[in-house]
Amino acid sequence: MVLDRLKQIASQVTNTVSPPHPLDPLSSLEIETATSLLRQEKGQLYYNAVTLLEPPKAEMLQWLADPDHSPRPARIADIVVITPNGEVMDGHVSLTEHKILSWTHTPNVQPLITMEDLQIVEHVVRKDPKVIEQCAILGIPASDMHKVYCDPWTIGYDERFGNSVRLQQALMYYRPHVDDSQYTYPLDFCPIYDSNKQEIIHIDIPKVRRPLSTAPPHNYTAQSIRDTIGYRTDLKPINITQPEGVSFTVNNRVINWQNWSVHVGFNYREGIVLNNITYFDKAENAVRPIFYRLSLSEMVVPYGNPERPHHRKHAFDLGEYGGGYMTNSLSLGCDCKGSIHYMDANFVNRAGAAQVIKNAICVHEEDAGILFKHTDFRDDSVIVTRARKLVISHIFTAANYEYCVYWIFHQDGTVQLEIKLTGILNTYAMNPGEETKGWGTEVYPGVNAHNHQHLFCLRIDPNIDGPNNTIFQVDAAQGAGEVGSEENFYGNAFYAKKKRFTNPVEAMSDYDGSTSRTWEMSNENKLNPYSKKPVSYKLVSREVPALLPKKGSLVWKRAGFARHAVHVTKYNDQSFYPAGRHVPQTSGEPSMGLPQWIEENPTENIANTDVVLWHTFGITHFPSPEDFPVMPAEPMTLLLRPRNFFVRNPCLDVPPSYARTPAEVAAGKSGCACGKDGKSVLV
Amino acid sequence: MVLDRLKQIASQVTNTVSPPHPLDPLSSLEIETATSLLRQEKGQLYYNAVTLLEPPKAEMLQWLADPDHSPRPARIADIVVITPNGEVMDGHVSLTEHKILSWTHTPNVQPLITMEDLQIVEHVVRKDPKVIEQCAILGIPASDMHKVYCDPWTIGYDERFGNSVRLQQALMYYRPHVDDSQYTYPLDFCPIYDSNKQEIIHIDIPKVRRPLSTAPPHNYTAQSIRDTIGYRTDLKPINITQPEGVSFTVNNRVINWQNWSVHVGFNYREGIVLNNITYFDKAENAVRPIFYRLSLSEMVVPYGNPERPHHRKHAFDLGEYGGGYMTNSLSLGCDCKGSIHYMDANFVNRAGAAQVIKNAICVHEEDAGILFKHTDFRDDSVIVTRARKLVISHIFTAANYEYCVYWIFHQDGTVQLEIKLTGILNTYAMNPGEETKGWGTEVYPGVNAHNHQHLFCLRIDPNIDGPNNTIFQVDAAQGAGEVGSEENFYGNAFYAKKKRFTNPVEAMSDYDGSTSRTWEMSNENKLNPYSKKPVSYKLVSREVPALLPKKGSLVWKRAGFARHAVHVTKYNDQSFYPAGRHVPQTSGEPSMGLPQWIEENPTENIANTDVVLWHTFGITHFPSPEDFPVMPAEPMTLLLRPRNFFVRNPCLDVPPSYARTPAEVAAGKSGCACGKDGKSVLV
Repeated sequence: MVLDRLKQIASQVTNTVSPPHPLDPLSSLEIETATSLLRQEKGQLYYNAVTLLEPPKAEMLQWLADPDHSPRPARIADIVVITPNGEVMDGHVSLTEHKILSWTHTPNVQPLITMEDLQIVEHVVRKDPKVIEQCAILGIPASDMHKVYCDPWTIGYDERFGNSVRLQQALMYYRPHVDDSQYTYPLDFCPIYDSNKQEIIHIDIPKVRRPLSTAPPHNYTAQSIRDTIGYRTDLKPINITQPEGVSFTVNNRVINWQNWSVHVGFNYREGIVLNNITYFDKAENAVRPIFYRLSLSEMVVPYGNPERPHHRKHAFDLGEYGGGYMTNSLSLGCDCKGSIHYMDANFVNRAGAAQVIKNAICVHEEDAGILFKHTDFRDDSVIVTRARKLVISHIFTAANYEYCVYWIFHQDGTVQLEIKLTGILNTYAMNPGEETKGWGTEVYPGVNAHNHQHLFCLRIDPNIDGPNNTIFQVDAAQGAGEVGSEENFYGNAFYAKKKRFTNPVEAMSDYDGSTSRTWEMSNENKLNPYSKKPVSYKLVSREVPALLPKKGSLVWKRAGFARHAVHVTKYNDQSFYPAGRHVPQTSGEPSMGLPQWIEENPTENIANTDVVLWHTFGITHFPSPEDFPVMPAEPMTLLLRPRNFFVRNPCLDVPPSYARTPAEVAAGKSGCACGKDGKSVLV
Repeated sequence: MVLDRLKQIASQVTNTVSPPHPLDPLSSLEIETATSLLRQEKGQLYYNAVTLLEPPKAEMLQWLADPDHSPRPARIADIVVITPNGEVMDGHVSLTEHKILSWTHTPNVQPLITMEDLQIVEHVVRKDPKVIEQCAILGIPASDMHKVYCDPWTIGYDERFGNSVRLQQALMYYRPHVDDSQYTYPLDFCPIYDSNKQEIIHIDIPKVRRPLSTAPPHNYTAQSIRDTIGYRTDLKPINITQPEGVSFTVNNRVINWQNWSVHVGFNYREGIVLNNITYFDKAENAVRPIFYRLSLSEMVVPYGNPERPHHRKHAFDLGEYGGGYMTNSLSLGCDCKGSIHYMDANFVNRAGAAQVIKNAICVHEEDAGILFKHTDFRDDSVIVTRARKLVISHIFTAANYEYCVYWIFHQDGTVQLEIKLTGILNTYAMNPGEETKGWGTEVYPGVNAHNHQHLFCLRIDPNIDGPNNTIFQVDAAQGAGEVGSEENFYGNAFYAKKKRFTNPVEAMSDYDGSTSRTWEMSNENKLNPYSKKPVSYKLVSREVPALLPKKGSLVWKRAGFARHAVHVTKYNDQSFYPAGRHVPQTSGEPSMGLPQWIEENPTENIANTDVVLWHTFGITHFPSPEDFPVMPAEPMTLLLRPRNFFVRNPCLDVPPSYARTPAEVAAGKSGCACGKDGKSVLV
């Protein structure tokens, strides 16, 4: 019976008219093909992840170069399960060959916490007698336990429990009414939950108790606004329309727009993955590869309050929960505007069935202001051309916070990553008159919002005119020679000082704002014909705080990727996750991911070879009352800009809004809008 | 006859039904009132500037607090002229009293170079026999002198000529055809022009000569694109419309929008000046002052090539040419989109007549993505609210470059300054095979674009709930206690380390990217009721390169404001220009402006008093071929954000696009779009 269903599914997969792109996420059918096969051969399993095992890069590059004559890379599912007796198994299942390729028990690790893992905790907490007892101490009667809520977090690492038991910590809250914001009523104790036993095994109770706040609710619901300050009525509509449709084409998951081509992948962990990013360069009459793969590969949010157990608040939101799993279903008119193309996301659930997040990814265009302009002061002859951008975005909710992730393509060859932070501050209880000691801010009576950092790790797999690339650190530097010397008489000499990285140890580099430090990804085998400099893309990133937890601290050990702004490693098909494959409850001894890889081969050559650049950036957030009860979006951005890559401005052929030459001015002729039929493409 | 006209004008001014706001720029009528009076009393003068003398702040604050019962500050014109015998006169003319208040000869200074001063140089250059001779050496026959062009620049400072003679340097170019870009054909010599004599007094000739380039033209004109690569045809229109009009109101030059109020001034030098910026805070039911005045007060663009005479390329575009004088007239559909409100700018010409730049300032709204969002992971109850922004912008052309200046107001209380750099690189000639020595980049055969910085000085006159403010430097810092210590056992402690500035010397501070350094403008006399921290606005600026010309260098001496990221001075009614009032040909000995003011009173108290914060920010530009022949806009931004200023998120009352509460989810009720008539205000 199971076998029949499996054969049926397999046949459907095989007979699909258009086979998936080798980098397409697994379809629902493929997910269930894998779980059906495993169910048949391994019996009942609790699924943690069933995702695409991306094909080996060598195979992929061969296929991308000539898809009609190269072998199509196999479809393989990368699988993490927990067995009914709590063992973690990592496996690969070939969907092409319908067989299990590998099946390994991985001891002493905990795979990430799924949404299903999270959802159950609150129900257990409400029924736990010791939790009920603690609530009573704070002034919440047992009859009000339905008003008690918890945000289950990964536990970070707690040395009392190690990593053999699968744990979550329950950050506790209260809602007077179901629609009230719970973050106004944090509770002061912290139950620890065992995911396998599904019970509370311990409660951390502070020495100083903080009874339930008696402050009035602090809400953002429509009703609460109507009942108090009322909605403002002076905002007139702005309509954004594209009567002729969008300027991009979608071929399955490959998007073509304004000379760009990009394959849009998605997985449970990183969320959006951009692959095989190329640009059709008119000057070379060639499609030029730029990035093989771009993704947010990890992040960590360390909190700055040293009092136990707040040190455990340092979630790795991608590796510990999954940016894909937590993704919002987007709705027109809310998250994006204009003509939207949506893509769904398919995941496995705990039981092994496929489930879909509708509209997980939004693809749309936006006007982007002036692309370029110049006026000749002699005669007011002018050209002004407007810019357009393509935005590929998703939004994920990590308990209290939302992360809005925008991958933006520009006509001038720039790729931009913008992240907006919104949602709600993580809060803790404080008594009237209690001091924050500088570790947080009282954002509302009884509400302490702790200092924290959001540190993201951007994984850049450059492919600048081919995979053999070199990374340079570039600083703006003063020239040699003191003021008055012949070589630098007026003291104004300055230049771009470059440091070429040849091994991963010397590539561990920090940010320097005063030198406007950037990093260049260069192909030294190809020089720009004019500048004679290697064709390059430059990482311009200005929100690059140092990791604030100290050297040797728990966070420093666990989040090795965050110790430096940039790490560079030689590419290999295994290294995707800079804090390790299974992140929850790692002790940091040894540090997994990047520090491990680098320690294994510290002198490996990374010059003029296939490399990966890992960039950690983010913000440090000292909360204030205007961030509460819901935080206005805080933006953060970085750019990947072509430098010496093109022989000229690559967007000269975007039709100008208006252009008038000196000869036209002299002859009294009007200028032109140079779109189709001589009309401007912008109204 | 002159007197009759004067009386007539004066009577018109007096009888204007609605008198101007005391900070309104001078009208055409007021400009001509002043010049008529001066013509009568002083005879013929060459006008350099006739602009509003802003009223003393004490008078203004009194009037703003109670305009109906306070004396209206007098209208006074601040005047700079050059007499027919070359003397510089500074004067004040009262338009209220119709009299000259002061009239002073200022020796050894040169007022800025006007557009009229610039325009004439090219004509002189083309006829000069020595220039014709130099052109011939490079291969340009005398019959082709109409194809020779020059961008006249301020001379910086040249010790051979000092500042007694009014000079410009002529950067020389050639156009094969009038519509070809001259920047592809730089010439290697540099004539020096005497503005008073209107003749070339010297030519700087390099030792190594560089004949006229034989490379083909490198153009961006519509015809050149059509003749070569052709315009792309795959860009579909995006229409942005506001069928019900804009959400702001304009009362003369005061704009009200989304609780903000701002007076939009404009002068020949700084361009846009924003005054009396306030926010109506619903929570306090009060209009709260935030900034008394914001403007770009100065800038400098040092070039990094130490070879003579390139050291002279370090234009102070505001103090030496005037960001107002160089402002573009904007056109709908080109520079701004949507429903635009334009403002004109009025200036004096050399002869003393008023002239107008139509549509000098653009005021418009834009959609700004997500304002805030939160989804409850338990039940998908959600709120998502879209943001709007108000943009007040102008664009000025400084010979080759354009600067697009956007003052942006956000609903969450943030003021943003965004600057986009576009236009054309300054270029110099190079021979085939010649080395740039790292001081520039060959962006096209024969075209050397030199390294340079764009450093802007933002003048912030804070008025955070009143004029008595204090500036703090804020760094993200690790807490005390090593890993394993009781106070910081897990090593995760961090906090906002604050340094309170009490005098201008200790306030001279540099940027530190690794600590995410910010500066807070605080009113220590008013604490946030929740956080107990002073109400503040925070300067968040991340593009803050160090000044690269060395200490003691010519640029370092002349551009004292650029030595540090932040200077703070006590407010006075005279200190507006951080490189001095008359900038051209200053030697930097002594350094004018900020260094001078601070040296005069280095221990003056700047804590809890009326202060001005001067912030220097910008970018360092190492050109590359994709910046040529016209540069895709490079953006740069900074934020002024409320911190502990509001008691809560001040934009909770912006109607959400969609909101659905847990109770509504549980009851199966749909949520709401909460605009007028329950509809979303955003389509």
